[in-house]
Amino acid sequence: MFTAIKRLLIGRPLKSTELGEQKLNKTKALAILSSDALSSVAYGPEQILIVLMAAGAIAFWYSIPIAIGVLVLLTALILSYRQIIHAYPHGGGAYVVSKENLGIWPGLIAGGSLLVDYILTVAVSVSAGTDAITSAFPSLHDYTVPIAIVFVIFITILNLRGVTESASVLAYPVYLFVLALFIMIGVGLYDIASGHVPPELHASIGTPVAGISLFLLLKAFASGSSALTGVEAISNAIPNFKAPAPNNAAKTLAAMGLLLALLFSGIVFLAWYYGITPHPQVTVVSEIAEQTFGRNAMYFFVQGTTALILILAANTGYSAFPLLAVSLAKDKFIPRMFTVRGDRLGYSNGILMLALSSILLIIVFNGQTEHLIPLYAVGVFIPFTLSQTGMMLKWIRQKPEGWRLKLTINGIGALICLVVTLMFFLTKFWQVWPVLVFLPLIIMLFRNIRKHYDAVGDQLRLSTCEPPITVEGNVIILPVAGITHVVENSLRYAKSLKPEQIIAVYVPFEREDEAAFEEKWKQWQPDVRLVTLHSPYRSIIQPLTKFVDTVQRKAGEMNVQVTVIIPQFIPKKGWHNILHNQSSLLIRAHLLYRRDVIVTTVPYHLKK
Amino acid sequence: MFTAIKRLLIGRPLKSTELGEQKLNKTKALAILSSDALSSVAYGPEQILIVLMAAGAIAFWYSIPIAIGVLVLLTALILSYRQIIHAYPHGGGAYVVSKENLGIWPGLIAGGSLLVDYILTVAVSVSAGTDAITSAFPSLHDYTVPIAIVFVIFITILNLRGVTESASVLAYPVYLFVLALFIMIGVGLYDIASGHVPPELHASIGTPVAGISLFLLLKAFASGSSALTGVEAISNAIPNFKAPAPNNAAKTLAAMGLLLALLFSGIVFLAWYYGITPHPQVTVVSEIAEQTFGRNAMYFFVQGTTALILILAANTGYSAFPLLAVSLAKDKFIPRMFTVRGDRLGYSNGILMLALSSILLIIVFNGQTEHLIPLYAVGVFIPFTLSQTGMMLKWIRQKPEGWRLKLTINGIGALICLVVTLMFFLTKFWQVWPVLVFLPLIIMLFRNIRKHYDAVGDQLRLSTCEPPITVEGNVIILPVAGITHVVENSLRYAKSLKPEQIIAVYVPFEREDEAAFEEKWKQWQPDVRLVTLHSPYRSIIQPLTKFVDTVQRKAGEMNVQVTVIIPQFIPKKGWHNILHNQSSLLIRAHLLYRRDVIVTTVPYHLKK
Repeated sequence: MFTAIKRLLIGRPLKSTELGEQKLNKTKALAILSSDALSSVAYGPEQILIVLMAAGAIAFWYSIPIAIGVLVLLTALILSYRQIIHAYPHGGGAYVVSKENLGIWPGLIAGGSLLVDYILTVAVSVSAGTDAITSAFPSLHDYTVPIAIVFVIFITILNLRGVTESASVLAYPVYLFVLALFIMIGVGLYDIASGHVPPELHASIGTPVAGISLFLLLKAFASGSSALTGVEAISNAIPNFKAPAPNNAAKTLAAMGLLLALLFSGIVFLAWYYGITPHPQVTVVSEIAEQTFGRNAMYFFVQGTTALILILAANTGYSAFPLLAVSLAKDKFIPRMFTVRGDRLGYSNGILMLALSSILLIIVFNGQTEHLIPLYAVGVFIPFTLSQTGMMLKWIRQKPEGWRLKLTINGIGALICLVVTLMFFLTKFWQVWPVLVFLPLIIMLFRNIRKHYDAVGDQLRLSTCEPPITVEGNVIILPVAGITHVVENSLRYAKSLKPEQIIAVYVPFEREDEAAFEEKWKQWQPDVRLVTLHSPYRSIIQPLTKFVDTVQRKAGEMNVQVTVIIPQFIPKKGWHNILHNQSSLLIRAHLLYRRDVIVTTVPYHLKK
Repeated sequence: MFTAIKRLLIGRPLKSTELGEQKLNKTKALAILSSDALSSVAYGPEQILIVLMAAGAIAFWYSIPIAIGVLVLLTALILSYRQIIHAYPHGGGAYVVSKENLGIWPGLIAGGSLLVDYILTVAVSVSAGTDAITSAFPSLHDYTVPIAIVFVIFITILNLRGVTESASVLAYPVYLFVLALFIMIGVGLYDIASGHVPPELHASIGTPVAGISLFLLLKAFASGSSALTGVEAISNAIPNFKAPAPNNAAKTLAAMGLLLALLFSGIVFLAWYYGITPHPQVTVVSEIAEQTFGRNAMYFFVQGTTALILILAANTGYSAFPLLAVSLAKDKFIPRMFTVRGDRLGYSNGILMLALSSILLIIVFNGQTEHLIPLYAVGVFIPFTLSQTGMMLKWIRQKPEGWRLKLTINGIGALICLVVTLMFFLTKFWQVWPVLVFLPLIIMLFRNIRKHYDAVGDQLRLSTCEPPITVEGNVIILPVAGITHVVENSLRYAKSLKPEQIIAVYVPFEREDEAAFEEKWKQWQPDVRLVTLHSPYRSIIQPLTKFVDTVQRKAGEMNVQVTVIIPQFIPKKGWHNILHNQSSLLIRAHLLYRRDVIVTTVPYHLKK
């Protein structure tokens, strides 16, 4: 039944050779990989205005130069990542670039912070989208957490179905959102150009503002640059592109950069020109849309697609997290299971891990994940800085044709990212300090996992010179609970192995029971030796283990192997198991994990 | 480490022969078994007044005749249960009495409703005690659920330590509570007798009341009789008494009945004489105490011991539930594990089950379990009625000396209990209807469990006439994941068993891998046959199971036994397990539960 449900939800399993068909073309890739970056224009401009509000509405004109700064940063990032894509065609991303050029520790810092960041992406964007919905339907407000969880599960199922299938579903909302915003910006600009909007709504650029400080402007800039989170997604996901993957990825990245720049500057400009002030209840985009269209169908179209893309922004995390996890797992820093492809060829363990972690975050923060945004932004800019620095070192070391230009591009990128990162720590320390605690912990965990895998590899490798110890014979210990078909069955099997000796062991709790059982056994199996171990403390495992130890010590001296045969009867229905004391499982686990004993389970299947 | 914590919390394990020392003397038994019954005087009188309030404060004098009715019922119950104790010296209780005299179905109705009732006892009384505490310290109000859970865990640990030890701790609060109430009643009566209390505070007995109805009076009576819940605890727990158990139990029961009667009538009388009206925030006992002492130390002594005994009332559930569970488990209606004695000779599985269920109830109802009280009361009176009826039939059938008197006593008891039960359904249907749903479900479950155990017994029993099938030889299948020490080890063991054939099986996911591995194997183990099973869908279990099926079919024709040997490497630390794909566990479970294959696990312990 489990299998049937699984088939229904995620589809039939795919052969490994069907992998090529799961690749993305540019249109789908743009939709699937840029929903995070594009959706951030819904809150990025607002973040700038909120900071500027501290100096009064007259300071809003500063949003124009700040937006230009963000656009410069965006350009630098896009150009830098184009270089990364061509330099690392098998999927670069901050982890690989930092590890190869700066060494293992910077690589782990980048990888660790991105890994956590993708979880934050999912939690934050799904919560934001859910908020948009519950704002529209206040009666749903008590169900924020369950609604958000349902969305996470929905996106998880889409991703378990496979990359291309989820792309088809996700492409429409993303393009509809872009269309809606373009119409809004276009109509707004036309109104302004045709003089329908009075120019006295805003303070003109250059108006002197009392009480403005460099600190405030830098804080506004840092806040605004949170609109750039998600830009790195494409460079992580090159293996998902159709061939020629690097070229297609670079073109997609350029297209995304262009869209992002147009939408971002359009919204900042309209917000300034309309003189819009941020409100806690109403978003800036909503105010612009209302100013432009009034409360008509177009307004709701803009709002609806915005809510949708906020939820779908989570999908970027789903594209990037599993691929980053594969890179880390191949380098043995996280459990190997993340490299296994699921039935539909996606890295399903990564997808499920991401889903569980983000659901946990949503539950712990009770759906109020907004104050995680700065944490999330700083978690993006640390790896940005590291990967740009890594690229600089790469150019300096390899000195390919035109390396000075490349170095300059990545140098500017690295510098701006470093400044933004520092800005976050300076201006929002109390919101981003957890990074300084969790990042070292995560990296320590990575190191320990790697150490363990290395140690295991060393121990398993065959060193051909070692002479194999020969086994001279076998002794079988058979714990019995009564005289039943189950025991008869196991005994028959034990005899068929023709061991040196078979010892049946019975553990009575009462003295009277002991003699009675010995008598019965002598009549039933006179030729099999029975040992009874009276257990005054009513434990089966303790006396049995002690006995096995004794036998094993003697046997070890003669190169004789000890095997414990455990009779286990298996009920017809799964729930019947709770009706039986699972002694055999306990005995098995104890002998196998604590002692070095071979354990054979002889099943006896019940027929009714 | 787990063992060390366990020792610290519950003490060293006890030998089965130390059982006698764990028995209760009368003083301790009274404390441990009557806290539920005695604590109910803290809310029973109040329940009567709340119902009477519907007809106005003038109707409060009816509480006196109603209390007399409750006292008659109490006397009937005590007398009836004394007879049960002597008739069933090995622990009677409603389940055994109903089953033996009325048949299996009435027995299951009584047993099922008591089993659920003890869970309700724990949840309701701990919640009530916690409420008393949070009323005193309102700042704790947000932590009601965690506080209640901590209390449940505390009582659970006491009970896991063993019967007598928990009795020693619990005896003080119970006797202090009794002492406090006796002082309060004594001082109150003295004040009244010495004329310090004006007699015009209350309407005198017999004052005509407009709007009083028989329905209302019956409802008040039913509510008041909720003070009698817990009376049956002693008759269930006879095996816990020191010898001569039945005599000691009967005396303890009589003492409890006397205490209960004195406290109950004292409180009802004072409440009437003082003209006390029930308030939502202040309990009736609190009002009486304030009236009697003022807000001095004695007042807080009464309040404190009341809160304490409400929490300890849960302990009655802990004494009775495990014993009832043993009776049901011995009759195979619930899982056998409830008959196993723990390290300290208590029935620890029953204790833990009760703790978990009541914690679950507290969480689900968010600590507001008060509206479960009627459900809980009706769940007590159904088994009361059944056991009294059972006793009636017993006397009619056996006709011992003086049976007419015995029949009369149990007859009156049965009648009153039946009337109270019907009253609950008539006057509080919307609070007690769940009984009609859950009771049949529980009884169905009991029947199914019994059916399963019977079927298992039939199948395991040795029918000596059946000729045993001989095993002619062995084939060993050895799944391998690579060429490592783990495989080398398992192969050595397989060879030592000298089977007819050893087949190593390798499941590659890629075609290229297949040929390479076959080549390597041929060089390493040229004399062991290797079968490779290419798995395009990346599943190991599916192709392996199919292969095992094929081998088994062929082997079955020749009476040859198939054994699958699974190499398993066991990491040094438990958490390392999550770093390795647990394929060997999955393969083992699949082969053992779905197919009839013998599975041998050869452990390979890692040293670092």
